Amino acid sequence: MGLWDIDKIEYVGREQGPQEGLAFHYYDAEKVVAGKKMKDWMRFGVAWWHTFDQELVDPFGTGTSHRPWYGKYSNPMDEALAKVDYAFEFFTKLGAEFFCFHDRDIAPEGDTLRETNANLDKVVDKIEENMKSTGVKLLWNTSSLFTNPRFVSGASTSPFADIYAYSGGQLKHSLEIAKRLGAENYVFWGGREGYENLWNTQMQREQAHMAQFFHMCHEYAKEIGLDAQFLIEPKAKEPTMHQYDFDAATAIAFLKTYDIDFMKLNLEGNHANLAGHTYQHEIRTAREAGVLGSLDANQGDKLIGWDMDEFPTDLYETTTVMWEVLDEGSIGPKGGLNFDAKPRRTSFYAEDLFRSHIAGMDTFAAGLLIADKMHQDKFIQNLQAERYSSYDSGIGKDIDEGKVTLADLEAYSLDKPQSELIAATKSDHLESVKATINNYMLETLANA
Amino acid sequence: MGLWDIDKIEYVGREQGPQEGLAFHYYDAEKVVAGKKMKDWMRFGVAWWHTFDQELVDPFGTGTSHRPWYGKYSNPMDEALAKVDYAFEFFTKLGAEFFCFHDRDIAPEGDTLRETNANLDKVVDKIEENMKSTGVKLLWNTSSLFTNPRFVSGASTSPFADIYAYSGGQLKHSLEIAKRLGAENYVFWGGREGYENLWNTQMQREQAHMAQFFHMCHEYAKEIGLDAQFLIEPKAKEPTMHQYDFDAATAIAFLKTYDIDFMKLNLEGNHANLAGHTYQHEIRTAREAGVLGSLDANQGDKLIGWDMDEFPTDLYETTTVMWEVLDEGSIGPKGGLNFDAKPRRTSFYAEDLFRSHIAGMDTFAAGLLIADKMHQDKFIQNLQAERYSSYDSGIGKDIDEGKVTLADLEAYSLDKPQSELIAATKSDHLESVKATINNYMLETLANA
Amino acid sequence: MGLWDIDKIEYVGREQGPQEGLAFHYYDAEKVVAGKKMKDWMRFGVAWWHTFDQELVDPFGTGTSHRPWYGKYSNPMDEALAKVDYAFEFFTKLGAEFFCFHDRDIAPEGDTLRETNANLDKVVDKIEENMKSTGVKLLWNTSSLFTNPRFVSGASTSPFADIYAYSGGQLKHSLEIAKRLGAENYVFWGGREGYENLWNTQMQREQAHMAQFFHMCHEYAKEIGLDAQFLIEPKAKEPTMHQYDFDAATAIAFLKTYDIDFMKLNLEGNHANLAGHTYQHEIRTAREAGVLGSLDANQGDKLIGWDMDEFPTDLYETTTVMWEVLDEGSIGPKGGLNFDAKPRRTSFYAEDLFRSHIAGMDTFAAGLLIADKMHQDKFIQNLQAERYSSYDSGIGKDIDEGKVTLADLEAYSLDKPQSELIAATKSDHLESVKATINNYMLETLANA
Amino acid sequence: MGLWDIDKIEYVGREQGPQEGLAFHYYDAEKVVAGKKMKDWMRFGVAWWHTFDQELVDPFGTGTSHRPWYGKYSNPMDEALAKVDYAFEFFTKLGAEFFCFHDRDIAPEGDTLRETNANLDKVVDKIEENMKSTGVKLLWNTSSLFTNPRFVSGASTSPFADIYAYSGGQLKHSLEIAKRLGAENYVFWGGREGYENLWNTQMQREQAHMAQFFHMCHEYAKEIGLDAQFLIEPKAKEPTMHQYDFDAATAIAFLKTYDIDFMKLNLEGNHANLAGHTYQHEIRTAREAGVLGSLDANQGDKLIGWDMDEFPTDLYETTTVMWEVLDEGSIGPKGGLNFDAKPRRTSFYAEDLFRSHIAGMDTFAAGLLIADKMHQDKFIQNLQAERYSSYDSGIGKDIDEGKVTLADLEAYSLDKPQSELIAATKSDHLESVKATINNYMLETLANA
Repeated sequence: MGLWDIDKIEYVGREQGPQEGLAFHYYDAEKVVAGKKMKDWMRFGVAWWHTFDQELVDPFGTGTSHRPWYGKYSNPMDEALAKVDYAFEFFTKLGAEFFCFHDRDIAPEGDTLRETNANLDKVVDKIEENMKSTGVKLLWNTSSLFTNPRFVSGASTSPFADIYAYSGGQLKHSLEIAKRLGAENYVFWGGREGYENLWNTQMQREQAHMAQFFHMCHEYAKEIGLDAQFLIEPKAKEPTMHQYDFDAATAIAFLKTYDIDFMKLNLEGNHANLAGHTYQHEIRTAREAGVLGSLDANQGDKLIGWDMDEFPTDLYETTTVMWEVLDEGSIGPKGGLNFDAKPRRTSFYAEDLFRSHIAGMDTFAAGLLIADKMHQDKFIQNLQAERYSSYDSGIGKDIDEGKVTLADLEAYSLDKPQSELIAATKSDHLESVKATINNYMLETLANA
Repeated sequence: MGLWDIDKIEYVGREQGPQEGLAFHYYDAEKVVAGKKMKDWMRFGVAWWHTFDQELVDPFGTGTSHRPWYGKYSNPMDEALAKVDYAFEFFTKLGAEFFCFHDRDIAPEGDTLRETNANLDKVVDKIEENMKSTGVKLLWNTSSLFTNPRFVSGASTSPFADIYAYSGGQLKHSLEIAKRLGAENYVFWGGREGYENLWNTQMQREQAHMAQFFHMCHEYAKEIGLDAQFLIEPKAKEPTMHQYDFDAATAIAFLKTYDIDFMKLNLEGNHANLAGHTYQHEIRTAREAGVLGSLDANQGDKLIGWDMDEFPTDLYETTTVMWEVLDEGSIGPKGGLNFDAKPRRTSFYAEDLFRSHIAGMDTFAAGLLIADKMHQDKFIQNLQAERYSSYDSGIGKDIDEGKVTLADLEAYSLDKPQSELIAATKSDHLESVKATINNYMLETLANA
Repeated sequence: MGLWDIDKIEYVGREQGPQEGLAFHYYDAEKVVAGKKMKDWMRFGVAWWHTFDQELVDPFGTGTSHRPWYGKYSNPMDEALAKVDYAFEFFTKLGAEFFCFHDRDIAPEGDTLRETNANLDKVVDKIEENMKSTGVKLLWNTSSLFTNPRFVSGASTSPFADIYAYSGGQLKHSLEIAKRLGAENYVFWGGREGYENLWNTQMQREQAHMAQFFHMCHEYAKEIGLDAQFLIEPKAKEPTMHQYDFDAATAIAFLKTYDIDFMKLNLEGNHANLAGHTYQHEIRTAREAGVLGSLDANQGDKLIGWDMDEFPTDLYETTTVMWEVLDEGSIGPKGGLNFDAKPRRTSFYAEDLFRSHIAGMDTFAAGLLIADKMHQDKFIQNLQAERYSSYDSGIGKDIDEGKVTLADLEAYSLDKPQSELIAATKSDHLESVKATINNYMLETLANA
Repeated sequence: MGLWDIDKIEYVGREQGPQEGLAFHYYDAEKVVAGKKMKDWMRFGVAWWHTFDQELVDPFGTGTSHRPWYGKYSNPMDEALAKVDYAFEFFTKLGAEFFCFHDRDIAPEGDTLRETNANLDKVVDKIEENMKSTGVKLLWNTSSLFTNPRFVSGASTSPFADIYAYSGGQLKHSLEIAKRLGAENYVFWGGREGYENLWNTQMQREQAHMAQFFHMCHEYAKEIGLDAQFLIEPKAKEPTMHQYDFDAATAIAFLKTYDIDFMKLNLEGNHANLAGHTYQHEIRTAREAGVLGSLDANQGDKLIGWDMDEFPTDLYETTTVMWEVLDEGSIGPKGGLNFDAKPRRTSFYAEDLFRSHIAGMDTFAAGLLIADKMHQDKFIQNLQAERYSSYDSGIGKDIDEGKVTLADLEAYSLDKPQSELIAATKSDHLESVKATINNYMLETLANA
């Protein structure tokens, strides 16, 4: 059966009953929904770091994962190269068309950047071959400017100039790899770009350094003809006490402050929650500002205060995400759904890598089907049209068109009695709206 | 159509499509599920305070609600009596068989307890008549020992003896009403039993006072022949900074410390979240300690830090609650599902009182159907049996039966290699478990 | 003694020992610190709504406050006018030079805006006289666009055009009052400008309406010659599920998106925490963006999830705030410290209004003394200078001056061994920094 | 200077000014406070795991720590033995009289328990010698039943019997070491005793297993004559989603349910916060239940949702803790203050281990001085006596002595008017209480 003791994952629909095996119940890659194939709505990506590198450690325990290559290689480069085969067989068997990686996921570091780059290039060679032979594409790559202790106080925001310099050097080669592998996007997650403590931090200077760094990267991308969409990835906290890219709104303020018009956002559900927001809020905020770039597919637990990167299994959340995507027309210009997710530490077999991706893909597929039905029925669209209808004519239309002054509004309002004002406000029947969304969830398949 | 401009709520099933009207999609009171009628699994109760008294204020705004009796009565007692008619017509039209109330919900206070009791009795007379004529029953009543400013620092835990005394006097009449109206349970929610600040608080003394209060109440209940199940209602915070009945485990510690064997717990989903728990956790904790009494049907928002008392619309939560109830056999000896819930402030029409109860009842009904399918299939039961199977024989059986010593365990383990120990641990495939629950949710109705 | 049974609050220093009476221990209005009088660093303001209107209700209890005017007036306008005398005597006895109010704090509403404005004007007449006779000034006024049920779904972001119109009319007169009373600032707190649920919300349209509203207000202010600094007040949540002015960064994004260059921020400690930030973070963010306007003096409890508006008594926080203010030179161009704070519900005597303001003023005064010593010693300034010193020369200087490209940085870094990079990072001795701040706190007065 | 390039830490008082060096400002071990030496109030312990093993990793980065033994030993046992010397020199130079360790902190595991125990014994031999020569004592030891992947689903609560058995075997030898080294306490922290998901968990069965495990350990302790106080350590969450020892109250419920009368609690400030409590709340809860055992000295950040184990530097918290300890008379029968704390990842020099312990010890010493002054003045005692004085006579005395019935209370209350009840409640002047605590903080040293 190949390197993984698992068959290709097939769509079998609901025939096998609710107790899931290793097959898709809802994800049918070629099925056309709202004018596009499911796979083209989703553009699922597998995250190299979680799937091939994560040993399922936590702050109180060492790794629990079982992986087929463990114990086979004594030389780290041999293992790194072997894992390319495991990875591409995994993508193919799972039916994922995209993958994502950090430079440091795929090859071990050497003592110098030159040595590190040499290691990297060998693995990239092999990845390039596999991409050609399988047709799997690079949704995005990125550079790890957070794991190595040199980045303890930041990379492009480090108080130490040599570290800033090294970050630039490292980034240069990462962009070259993006170009070579045809990355559709290029992501910046500022894991150490924030502060541990504000007393010893010149926040503005650090942010100016970060902005300058992005401009440099953009210049170099133009120089080498890389047309990947640049993406910044908001996260509120962890590992730092405050991350500069706190949430979508903060990232938008940053982009505007530093005249960065070449970046969009890569959003994540778990990160949204850590900032106190719903995932829908972050996506809507980005959509309305024209900066929706790509999405991470994962979830946290709202009763838990740290980043969990769980595989997404909440149907309310996937329905919401896919409704926003349907309404937008796509996940940004070249975005996809990258599984920035790992199995739980108790779910440690190699097989669980397939199981957890299936759970995530199926939950998104069901979310798409439900959202599509809601979208077709114009349930939300009509709700909103009705709710804002007072702006379609009269004073509302004048307001919407910017034709009024405070004096006009005073004249209009001065003698309106309270009863008339109260009558102008309408109940939103919010509980019925939520019940209707439940109905769509429970009945979309029942009536399919 | 009566006092409310709404017809009786009927079960129409899914025929009307997902966009809900004023009818039940899933709640079919007489339908038999797992050997009992739906209504007998649920025993839905309407909360007087939210439904008939709540004006939809919040800390930053005055009431928004529209109610059919507003503006009709200048005398508070007239309004209180009139609202009894509105209430019983509401119960009947909705098809709820139970209701719940605080003494202060139903009648205005006088200047003295004697005057207050007189007001109360007049309304209770009318309630008693309506109960007889409609068959609607009292799931539980309770006493408000938190709204009046005299309770600013507690009732049975007040530092002020006169307030303790008053609380006892007030409670006495509330128990008499419970007896008279045949209350199935009697609830104590200690809204002011906690502290604002620990520096000025003798916590142990206050808790001892509270325990003594409960013993007194129990004595009096025996004296008057009241056999309602006494219930304590855990809540972590709000209105106090720390409530003494923080969560189920804290309540259990309290009951054990003060030899209170006559009380069980009334649990609530929103309260569970405020303590950092899932609702399932609280229910399971109570079940396993033998103190599951009754349930409040509501929900919070896990991104929000205060008590919201939203109508329950989360299918994951109602499925979980109903699975625990199915597994237990009932909601405690005489418990039910009391809607301790109010419409959102933006959902302010009288009609929204029906809409929101429909949303809640339907969400619980769907939860019951899904949980029943899971329970029938023994999905969870088998999962657990398999997971703990090493305790069915050998050393596991000896452990389970308490036959071993540390020395036995050392002898058993001393030379086991790591590989064998790792092999003894099994993956729980947690992502697949969650996907299977989704499948039950999506497919129970589809295959019905 | 006048209307309040309390003497003028005097500075007695530490002579009375730690057990506080009704006097200042640290706040000595005329004492010069860092070149300015204490009172000119602070510019304390009393909040009309909390001090004269708040009855100390909470969502589970009615008012507990005792106030000298209770029960004296049957006519609301008579009470409103009488309270002006209480207020100005309060300001004078306390020694606060500023006050703040919402239009709806000071006079009852009529049935129409015209009637409401007439009520308002009568009270404003009296306030104006009192300002002249006492010299107390208006730090800022604002308009309550959140309490009345007409604003249930927003004011300038209401989906109902008549409500938008009314809000404009109301605002017009509020600006006229600002002009008349010489307000130094004018605040917009968007208590209902946010959403309850995103499904029924056109967020972008609502925000565009809000921006247009601010532009209209700015136009009208120019028209009438009002030169008060306009301020927006960020808050994350409550009363809405998501407030559009979530935090400082979100407000900055909004101001930039809608070309609003005439607004700064009024920040608050409790609001900072509700957004997941420290107060220092919010102040620093505003300072660095050039939009620090004014400050609310209050605190929350980080274990509590709702807005508490406690009087500020945390010395760490006041030290931090005053350090930022010292470093900035002032609290924005015309800002002050407005006590957006209320006594706890258990602290309900009229006297507690004085006690709680004393606690807050003394805690800020001590914070100023501690921060001044730290600032004079250049403790933080030196710490930062040392930490970023690698940017003073060499590659660091080139980076700071924007003279480098990725290629330069690669060339600089390519052959640096890991050991050299690690050596370039320095420990920040963060525990010693915190210990030193403690030392300043404990020793500033000891060595005074 | 020995193995560490640091002199013995001396008490120099405030002579060096606020900018701290490597000396104590407030901690003067031999100074007598409230009848005992400072060191005997505190009984500071150094945690082996954080101080000698922690490399300052976080979930997104590898270790940053510099330690003098790094790179010197290729054989893990050689390093383990060498670290004993570093440890005891550290204790001695710091002036800490106690230390604490997990079995797995001090020696590497072998493939079997027998081999692991052999490794352990060699290091214990050396520790025993060092204890004799230095006089440093063992505050407590414990067993790591959470780090190794075999404990992925629990130790004494594992669903896998072989793991339960192994845990028992491991514990046996850990108790033998406690006996040999004269441990004053023995701690159980159930890092994996909880659940990841409730669906696949038999909570009651797991808790019964855990209780049986503790009884077995207690039996064995009696058998070998170990008289260390057994301690359970509450923690709410992390690493599991729910820890069985959630907080003090939950632990008390557990101890009562399973008739465990031989255990007390080891409490921790950071854990208190993760459960939604203050540290004071947890200590008071344990004191009043008679189960205060020992304390961990650390702190979290209340805006951060994970376990930080920061060194304690918050004077409010150390003042509070030491006030409770002064009021109790000691930290439990044989407890101490164990620094379950690590320097921040950015504070990575070897020297920072000294700096951070100094910060913690000084913060506790200042807390002791402040609390002692408050305690001597009977500030809190008098506040409480006054507040509860209505229970000193009359109806209050009868209530306190349990002499009343509901009927008595009704008779007492029935005709009391509201005004009299309100008059019976007194303001707690809470803001003044907080201000007074500030005064003690600022003035204790100033007036020393």
